[in-house]
Amino acid sequence: MPNPYPRFSVFIAASLDGFIARADGELDWLLGATTSTDDHGYAAYMQGIDTLLLGRNTYEKVLSFDPWPYAGKRVVVMSNTLDSIAPTLAAEVSLQRGTVREAAAALAASGTSSVYVDGGKLIQSFLAEGLIDTLTITRIPMLIGNGIPLFGDAGHDIRLAHLRTTTYESGFVQSTYRVIAASQNDQASTAN
Amino acid sequence: MPNPYPRFSVFIAASLDGFIARADGELDWLLGATTSTDDHGYAAYMQGIDTLLLGRNTYEKVLSFDPWPYAGKRVVVMSNTLDSIAPTLAAEVSLQRGTVREAAAALAASGTSSVYVDGGKLIQSFLAEGLIDTLTITRIPMLIGNGIPLFGDAGHDIRLAHLRTTTYESGFVQSTYRVIAASQNDQASTAN
Repeated sequence: MPNPYPRFSVFIAASLDGFIARADGELDWLLGATTSTDDHGYAAYMQGIDTLLLGRNTYEKVLSFDPWPYAGKRVVVMSNTLDSIAPTLAAEVSLQRGTVREAAAALAASGTSSVYVDGGKLIQSFLAEGLIDTLTITRIPMLIGNGIPLFGDAGHDIRLAHLRTTTYESGFVQSTYRVIAASQNDQASTAN
Repeated sequence: MPNPYPRFSVFIAASLDGFIARADGELDWLLGATTSTDDHGYAAYMQGIDTLLLGRNTYEKVLSFDPWPYAGKRVVVMSNTLDSIAPTLAAEVSLQRGTVREAAAALAASGTSSVYVDGGKLIQSFLAEGLIDTLTITRIPMLIGNGIPLFGDAGHDIRLAHLRTTTYESGFVQSTYRVIAASQNDQASTAN
């Protein structure tokens, strides 16, 4: 019997109009949105995570952060186009190729149990495959008009169950949803 | 001195991925999302409204409802392409042509004080012009993938202040925001 898939979850900030970054990846609208030092639940969320799965664009964005923000966590970059991982990170970051299901199976085989999926396209692919367990979305009170969208078109409806919502002094509104199932029967069997 | 503009507000449901209807206008995903009889604050909101301003598509959608849901309220349809109002509604519905600012001025001149702006394109136009005072968005826990978007690209950032969030047993999450101002100085002066 194959290893069960790990629990895949999403924890992400988005503008009220649904963007996770400007078209060029910039996060100025997010970083400038509050002077609060509240981490909006990030540390508590990260305590339950053993592995981060990043899309290529997100990985390249995070590479520009100093220090590397995921020290102590296993990080897997999912890309079919990236040549290699930066040598300084080779000890803690690995490269995964193939499909979303192949990545999920590889993570399962390696004993991973709880994966933070980050990056617009990667989140969309995992949602479309019915692999995401919970989504935590922190809405920033800002309309930026265009950029990199959080959601895409899975080709079918995806029903969610609202678990909880927290509001912050910053005006950020954070809601957590569990993915129930795709609405089409041919998708329901793939739900995690 | 000209009459002050009325207070323009928005009260709308949207899928978690930001659509107010499917591409063909269908609301099945919304109408089937709950069996609750809770009106999610609609009646209380409508008590503070004297006029509805509808875009053409929204008007034509509402025309298909029986009975007409806005009896007792003044309704203005804003369209530069619609030929005329349905004769049965001529007593309570009027047609407004021109620009968003011309419509706002005409409503002000007619003594209107609180206007419910409904319809994706109309909401986007009013937001872009800095004319919306508050937005109440009820998020339905569903991803529908594509359709008529709530928001568009105003060409500049729009900052909001979170006023309140209410969660419902249905899983609907309703947040109200006040529009602070566009972020560019040349837009700030047009904010209401």
